[in-house]
Amino acid sequence: MIQRLCIIGVGLIGGSLARALRSVGAVGSVIGCGRGAVNLQSAVRLGVIDEYSFDPATAVAGADMVVVATSLGASPVIFDNIAAKLMDDAVITDVGSAKRRILDAAKISFGDGVARFVPGHPIAGTEKSGVEASFADLFRDRQVILTPDSTTDVEALDKVTQMWRATGAIVSQMDVEQHDNVLAATSHLPHMLAYALVDCLSSMNSSADIFKFAAGGFRDLTRIASSSPEMWCDIAIDNRDALLTALTSFSATYDDLVRALAAGDKDSLLKLFARAKSARDAFGGTVN
Amino acid sequence: MIQRLCIIGVGLIGGSLARALRSVGAVGSVIGCGRGAVNLQSAVRLGVIDEYSFDPATAVAGADMVVVATSLGASPVIFDNIAAKLMDDAVITDVGSAKRRILDAAKISFGDGVARFVPGHPIAGTEKSGVEASFADLFRDRQVILTPDSTTDVEALDKVTQMWRATGAIVSQMDVEQHDNVLAATSHLPHMLAYALVDCLSSMNSSADIFKFAAGGFRDLTRIASSSPEMWCDIAIDNRDALLTALTSFSATYDDLVRALAAGDKDSLLKLFARAKSARDAFGGTVN
Repeated sequence: MIQRLCIIGVGLIGGSLARALRSVGAVGSVIGCGRGAVNLQSAVRLGVIDEYSFDPATAVAGADMVVVATSLGASPVIFDNIAAKLMDDAVITDVGSAKRRILDAAKISFGDGVARFVPGHPIAGTEKSGVEASFADLFRDRQVILTPDSTTDVEALDKVTQMWRATGAIVSQMDVEQHDNVLAATSHLPHMLAYALVDCLSSMNSSADIFKFAAGGFRDLTRIASSSPEMWCDIAIDNRDALLTALTSFSATYDDLVRALAAGDKDSLLKLFARAKSARDAFGGTVN
Repeated sequence: MIQRLCIIGVGLIGGSLARALRSVGAVGSVIGCGRGAVNLQSAVRLGVIDEYSFDPATAVAGADMVVVATSLGASPVIFDNIAAKLMDDAVITDVGSAKRRILDAAKISFGDGVARFVPGHPIAGTEKSGVEASFADLFRDRQVILTPDSTTDVEALDKVTQMWRATGAIVSQMDVEQHDNVLAATSHLPHMLAYALVDCLSSMNSSADIFKFAAGGFRDLTRIASSSPEMWCDIAIDNRDALLTALTSFSATYDDLVRALAAGDKDSLLKLFARAKSARDAFGGTVN
């Protein structure tokens, strides 16, 4: 049970977390923090938070759980702002899609207090942003990855684990580097492909025709290109090394495909497509 | 009204076409043709066709409308087989995703009779194959592109147009080259990306973890990688020139993105993502 929850960044993720915890009575009061008055007022009106502050240092006062759900780029500054104002037994967590840089920033801001910082990443979301898009079931049956290290406080880890379980999520732990590599491959790389594909097509002649005749495959493949450019810029930069590795790996497969096509090598093309279909079909049931 | 419809290749597309025309009473009898006895027997049992033949030359006898809905690679051989057996006033069309090579093959097989061949392409489908996956509403509100040229018989063009309109589709005409370029960009290229992405990921270490933690974006982006490898190999080879152009164009955008990321150039990344989001949002309503 969380007595007082402080959500810094009351958007899709932060808002949905507050809604989910409230819906199962797992939280006492909720204070939100952000920069946009309209969004915070909406959050109060929607019953997502009880009150709000524009100042992170003020917002964390008295909170036993602090969730930093801002953009990745903003998190280090938030850590600096709140470090001196946290309660001694406060637990801090975040929701960022890349963990190495966040953890390094937390170490700098919190010093020894980093033991009570539990890096977290709920693998859930939609292409929408803002508290208006939030809903209590966003995390139900979704994976939440926590990336504690040897210095992480066991009690803090348990508290964050229980919080996410209360939302209906499946919580697992992973090494920071493994997390960043896996997410680079399964999430960050696909977003780069979707953005690059739409940008490439929209720059072609007759792009009106091009989009008019696009079918379901194109729609599905590019849905994620409607995601927030700012958020994805932060993620890409924050997880740059792992993402560059994934991009290079994709390039190699792509170049193989282009070479096979240019050579009219049906056999190689067919093998590549068949391997992909087999992998996609096999894992289809676990991808949700 | 079609008196006798011959569907060569009773799969998802051919089967759905027969179902759609039957459901609105736009066809008398339907004969199917294919190589697989089990599939053809299913088609009769499901009421999709009335009878079948394994021999295309036999199947077209007496048919006033012949739809070649086999794979692209098989179509030229089919054309050769049926050319001498077509009724004088028979209209022939196809459903291939690339049109230049099909039209060239039809000219060789049909000679002057190519005037009654109307190249067609319904932009509809699912990742499934076979008559069991077919359904009458597959083409409702979908685009069907016909690519007649100056030699195409006006009456034949009208008959094919009416046939597709009867299925609920929106029929338009396009120049062959334009069709192949537009489809390379909006359909064939996305399929190559999906296949390459899944193949790339499945070859990575810990690919079990990789798929376990994949979220909705990955699922949507790679759904089309479950499509038939054989069919897509045919399409890629058939539309090779236009597809290579699209692949090269994508590579240029992709390389820009990788370069910007490697340089930590947030400004360029943000601009690319924002352009893509804007294009995807703007055309979102027309992509169905």
